[in-house]
Amino acid sequence: MKVSARNSLKGTVKTITYGTVNTEVVIEVAPGVDLVSIITKASAEAMDLAEGKEVYAMVKASNIMLAVD
Amino acid sequence: MKVSARNSLKGTVKTITYGTVNTEVVIEVAPGVDLVSIITKASAEAMDLAEGKEVYAMVKASNIMLAVD
Amino acid sequence: MKVSARNSLKGTVKTITYGTVNTEVVIEVAPGVDLVSIITKASAEAMDLAEGKEVYAMVKASNIMLAVD
Amino acid sequence: MKVSARNSLKGTVKTITYGTVNTEVVIEVAPGVDLVSIITKASAEAMDLAEGKEVYAMVKASNIMLAVD
Amino acid sequence: MKVSARNSLKGTVKTITYGTVNTEVVIEVAPGVDLVSIITKASAEAMDLAEGKEVYAMVKASNIMLAVD
Amino acid sequence: MKVSARNSLKGTVKTITYGTVNTEVVIEVAPGVDLVSIITKASAEAMDLAEGKEVYAMVKASNIMLAVD
Repeated sequence: MKVSARNSLKGTVKTITYGTVNTEVVIEVAPGVDLVSIITKASAEAMDLAEGKEVYAMVKASNIMLAVD
Repeated sequence: MKVSARNSLKGTVKTITYGTVNTEVVIEVAPGVDLVSIITKASAEAMDLAEGKEVYAMVKASNIMLAVD
Repeated sequence: MKVSARNSLKGTVKTITYGTVNTEVVIEVAPGVDLVSIITKASAEAMDLAEGKEVYAMVKASNIMLAVD
Repeated sequence: MKVSARNSLKGTVKTITYGTVNTEVVIEVAPGVDLVSIITKASAEAMDLAEGKEVYAMVKASNIMLAVD
Repeated sequence: MKVSARNSLKGTVKTITYGTVNTEVVIEVAPGVDLVSIITKASAEAMDLAEGKEVYAMVKASNIMLAVD
Repeated sequence: MKVSARNSLKGTVKTITYGTVNTEVVIEVAPGVDLVSIITKASAEAMDLAEGKEVYAMVKASNIMLAVD
């Protein structure tokens, strides 16, 4: 499957925190570089997420802001 | 300034493409890893974006989707 | 590939309108029901989008608002 | 009231799951086609959401991604 | 119509800039306080937007980031 | 730090509600005008948010919808 999201980073699940509705997933995409994603608990379960599993973090280009010092 | 966005990746502007309203900015965040951001043209101009400039790409955790093979 | 987006609707591309940076794609997901998506022009080209092509429209649950009369 | 969101689908609330902050609402928009929305608990209460109630699911065009097989 | 978006600010359209696909709308929500919205050109036309017109700017709570000095 | 988000409103934290994963923050941006933001609990803690604290509410232009009566 090919997705329109321009941004896709391969990583490994580091930690998973379950709430009632949402779940926080921390993904290591490079040594020392972590991303944090919030998905629904049902999605996390449907994807069988677990620590150490390989995942892709995907973001639409319109959801990336820029900042300069 | 400290921002609530959980995800912030430092990078270098590779290319800038201007539309009438929006602007596409490609940022190299690691060797061979590019992110693409769409911001308004007015933002790009207010930030004085230019190729080679250092920027931070920021994403809210709720805007990151996950995918598994 | 399995994606965390909870919402995925199968449809057919009806029209494509190209801007300089963004592209508007109208997808028919059921008889008389159209969805409109804005993706980058580069994405549209990378996916070889064309009228009549089958696509999936995907939305994160946190991006769906509700309204009542 | 007329809203700029290009995408509006009429449906019926199937299930509601309350968390402390967020609420997950499943809406049937066509026979066999469900959408899942995450809104704040306070919104769900302000709208008097209940199973069987008619709602509109609304999405901005920039929040719809596309995928092809 | 009652909308789940927790944030709704009443304002007046100050300027409209049309691109091929998207439109930038500047809204004055208080004296000296402007918001900028990007909607599709088709939405702007369907809503008959014009300078001086009264509008509501609506944002989902999950799309508001916070920053502190 | 200069951010690409076109919309930044200064305000004061009124209330904070913690869930397991997310946190709801109500910010007063003008007398009688409140905004509601959902950020991760970890962000709220990292920013040392507390009632009465000054914050900036930031929104990308593409996340603002418009409505007319």
